[in-house]
Amino acid sequence: MAFPKQVRLVEMSPRDGLQNESGPVIATHIKTGLIDRLANCGLSHIEAASFVSPKWVPQMGDAADVMAGITRKPGVRYSALTPNLKGFEGALAANVDEVAVFGAASESFTRKNINCSIAESLERFAPVVEEARKHNIPVRGYVSTVLGCPYEGDIQPEQVATVAKALYDLGCYEISLGDTIGVGTPLKAKKMLEAVAKHIPVERLAAHFHDTYGQALANLYAVLEEGIAVIDSSVAGLGGCPYAKGASGNVATEDVLYLLNGLGIETGVDLDKLVATGDWICGQLSRHNGSKVGQALGGQCQ
Amino acid sequence: MAFPKQVRLVEMSPRDGLQNESGPVIATHIKTGLIDRLANCGLSHIEAASFVSPKWVPQMGDAADVMAGITRKPGVRYSALTPNLKGFEGALAANVDEVAVFGAASESFTRKNINCSIAESLERFAPVVEEARKHNIPVRGYVSTVLGCPYEGDIQPEQVATVAKALYDLGCYEISLGDTIGVGTPLKAKKMLEAVAKHIPVERLAAHFHDTYGQALANLYAVLEEGIAVIDSSVAGLGGCPYAKGASGNVATEDVLYLLNGLGIETGVDLDKLVATGDWICGQLSRHNGSKVGQALGGQCQ
Repeated sequence: MAFPKQVRLVEMSPRDGLQNESGPVIATHIKTGLIDRLANCGLSHIEAASFVSPKWVPQMGDAADVMAGITRKPGVRYSALTPNLKGFEGALAANVDEVAVFGAASESFTRKNINCSIAESLERFAPVVEEARKHNIPVRGYVSTVLGCPYEGDIQPEQVATVAKALYDLGCYEISLGDTIGVGTPLKAKKMLEAVAKHIPVERLAAHFHDTYGQALANLYAVLEEGIAVIDSSVAGLGGCPYAKGASGNVATEDVLYLLNGLGIETGVDLDKLVATGDWICGQLSRHNGSKVGQALGGQCQ
Repeated sequence: MAFPKQVRLVEMSPRDGLQNESGPVIATHIKTGLIDRLANCGLSHIEAASFVSPKWVPQMGDAADVMAGITRKPGVRYSALTPNLKGFEGALAANVDEVAVFGAASESFTRKNINCSIAESLERFAPVVEEARKHNIPVRGYVSTVLGCPYEGDIQPEQVATVAKALYDLGCYEISLGDTIGVGTPLKAKKMLEAVAKHIPVERLAAHFHDTYGQALANLYAVLEEGIAVIDSSVAGLGGCPYAKGASGNVATEDVLYLLNGLGIETGVDLDKLVATGDWICGQLSRHNGSKVGQALGGQCQ
């Protein structure tokens, strides 16, 4: 076992979290309030918005206003999802620090989600990555359904490796491996990571695990043993699971941080401030706090 | 890594689960209905009741009726907590298969919980173990607060080892190591286990981890790597945490089983039946289902 000394937490709540929240569109000032609080917790990388058509994701329709409304904290990377060139142009105009593209390891998932094949999805990302390079903006690549697909079931580790490598070769500096429906278990996660790490250095990989079946922390512990040092998470576990009503989605940042603190791994993030931020956003959204640490230490939203 | 091929799950919900449920005393037929359903899931060891004074734990006041009301399934061990000789006599009359005594690694916790020192608590258990031996009834020993105490904070691994060894030397055939307030993380759990395993064979040890901070499955994964092959858990995560209002207590059996299934470890327990049982008891108690697997796969109580 050789755990990393430091882990970078990539905070997903403003984007992957809020876009999955049901109910009415959340006011812009709540989104900016969340992002500013997250930055003040010591998080150095926050996915702040998604520049997609508001027809598809109404919850993210105010991406430009969100980016304009936040107080930029020095040293914090504010990134945004940009599924196509139009999205990239919006993100560029909004002065984001980094953009991200979103692929999947499953053909069926890609077809149902964005109505094209995996190969076609990669073709769509190519001009985004090219434009980003021109403007010296780093691109992160997501691969979803890496440990299972709601339509296909099991996904072969080699299939994940192929898609991850394609995104890496395209020019993504980091590939985030997403267990989108949270079905993975530790040995499965290790095997998947080993297959990908044959093609991409592990320092260029991130774990993006959902907690739908309660396995996320065990899976993270297992891939930390393999050298993963970048973890995606969402304060208060914001963001449900669109494939299982009432179930959990993103693993909660508070719970991940508690694990990392216990393992002596540095993050630069303050747990008390994070718990207070989770409490605050749950209060704003009248929502159950999906973090167990938040439930144990927090005050408002139990 | 050398995971065990098989794990015995010890089901805690009828005792450690229900005794912590707030609200009115639960009807006996619900308790027996739960126990019979658990046996039909394939669980081979169920802690069914606690023979304590109903003055102290009103929720367990019908222990004899519960034991009389269940349908004994061949091959299933029905155990009961017996803190003193009077309790043991009640359990003996009720024809339990196994009894258990409950100590702690923390002096302060012992003092607050049962108003005596650790040494005095062990003296109280001695006649219970002696009587049990006369009647050829196995005795299980619990050690609580093994990864932290609500009053003292950190607990030294050697202190856990001392109390565990005292119970083992007294005649307990198995020692269940309880993270009563769920504060542990994986390396801490491993270190504690290593300290205890210097004195007691790991085959004689069980992990009893609570999920208050969401760490239980990661901790279980870590101690499975060390050879632990007996795990205590509670269907639907029944039983809250008396030290943090609204927080989780026992790790959910469904979530543990999902982990073990994913690791290819046999238990003999049927996940679908278990999820249905968790759903059923949550419906009976009008209670939130504390199992993430239950939330993802179950139907009634999301």
